[in-house]
Amino acid sequence: MSDIPETHPRRASLLSRQKLVDAQAKGMLANSALIAHGRGEAFDYLLGEKTTSGARNAAQEVLARMSNAKNPVISVNGNTVALAIEQLLLLADKIGCPIEVNIYYRTPERMNALLNHIEEVRSHLGIDVLILGSNPDGEIPNLDGPRAKCCSAGILNADAILVPLEDGDRCEALINMGKEVFVVDLNPLSRTARMATICIVDEISRAVSVMLEMDCSAVKVNPDFDATSSRDAVLDEMLDALKRNQTEA
Amino acid sequence: MSDIPETHPRRASLLSRQKLVDAQAKGMLANSALIAHGRGEAFDYLLGEKTTSGARNAAQEVLARMSNAKNPVISVNGNTVALAIEQLLLLADKIGCPIEVNIYYRTPERMNALLNHIEEVRSHLGIDVLILGSNPDGEIPNLDGPRAKCCSAGILNADAILVPLEDGDRCEALINMGKEVFVVDLNPLSRTARMATICIVDEISRAVSVMLEMDCSAVKVNPDFDATSSRDAVLDEMLDALKRNQTEA
Repeated sequence: MSDIPETHPRRASLLSRQKLVDAQAKGMLANSALIAHGRGEAFDYLLGEKTTSGARNAAQEVLARMSNAKNPVISVNGNTVALAIEQLLLLADKIGCPIEVNIYYRTPERMNALLNHIEEVRSHLGIDVLILGSNPDGEIPNLDGPRAKCCSAGILNADAILVPLEDGDRCEALINMGKEVFVVDLNPLSRTARMATICIVDEISRAVSVMLEMDCSAVKVNPDFDATSSRDAVLDEMLDALKRNQTEA
Repeated sequence: MSDIPETHPRRASLLSRQKLVDAQAKGMLANSALIAHGRGEAFDYLLGEKTTSGARNAAQEVLARMSNAKNPVISVNGNTVALAIEQLLLLADKIGCPIEVNIYYRTPERMNALLNHIEEVRSHLGIDVLILGSNPDGEIPNLDGPRAKCCSAGILNADAILVPLEDGDRCEALINMGKEVFVVDLNPLSRTARMATICIVDEISRAVSVMLEMDCSAVKVNPDFDATSSRDAVLDEMLDALKRNQTEA
């Protein structure tokens, strides 16, 4: 994969795919993680693998709200770590919030693989970001099993949580705790996308890169931000892409 | 996964996913096979995980042409075997054609895992179908490396080939050999879907099940079958689904 030409039109997508395959080999991912990534790829294909203006607006609002929150936290799972941990560490540093590893299929092996990898990247970046997840001391209400576990210094007491690539059940449980829940999901119709306070419909590493380019102090919270219109704007771009391709065929 | 309730609306999709994960564990799949499956899942989601009337028409035409061909063959790769080998063995028996294992990332281990699995299913079904692929003695022109290898008793001399889930390059190479190439692809916009003589835009096990319900002697070849309109009909259904969901959101 490393011999993908610099000019390949789908280079970023192929590199992301390789990151997932590598993370799988390191034991960082659940069995179905690659399938979930593939689903995302299909929706990204419909987006032309570009950040739309609708996604950019959503990303800006999320950055403003995370920056203004009292106890913000970024929650990451295996795919998120594989695809964008470097950018997310930089974002956590910028916002001044911890990162909590919180995975659906929690095993000690996967947690260790993820925590070690994040610590390695953090140390390489030379930044101070608190990494939570190894000693969960709280539970998300109304979820059963290991996926309910979380940290009181992170998710449990957060008022705003950026949790890219979240599943619908957990997104709903977090909303029911009264938190602002910000997700990144390439499927604008998913239950997660619909449940979230705001969904950034974009590929995770692109979405976070966009936030890294913005100035935290310059972005202002818009209390009237319309999350549904925001998703619909991206869906419109997907529909246009499908129709355009149909005409060309 | 085996505890998915019988009534779960997405039961078939979740069972298919489990088949892929199991096949991965048996060494039948390439690294990126699960990602490819996930991409398919996303498009199937837009189809409502149902065979459309457009797909049914395409499947009927493919069955007619395969039944009327002089040397038809069904070519299978890892994902195809994982998802639908039982149905494809029954289809090969019905048409009276061999099945050739032909994979993009060819290694002796994967070939053996696939051939053994197919032989096991064939023997369990108690039918006679010639299984080719272990001793390739031919090459598909204009393809480089191991993915060019094929059998003279199968793909090399076939006039009609049903090759579900094919990649664009090889689809093109087979078309350039003057064959009728029939694919099954959930992405109606893919290069494979556009290159093929006919693309059935449907999930592979559903598409083959539809063909198994049809009577070979009753289906007639339509020389004027319009493959582009056929794909567009399914794309229209996807667009309608997206628009409907948008309105509901």
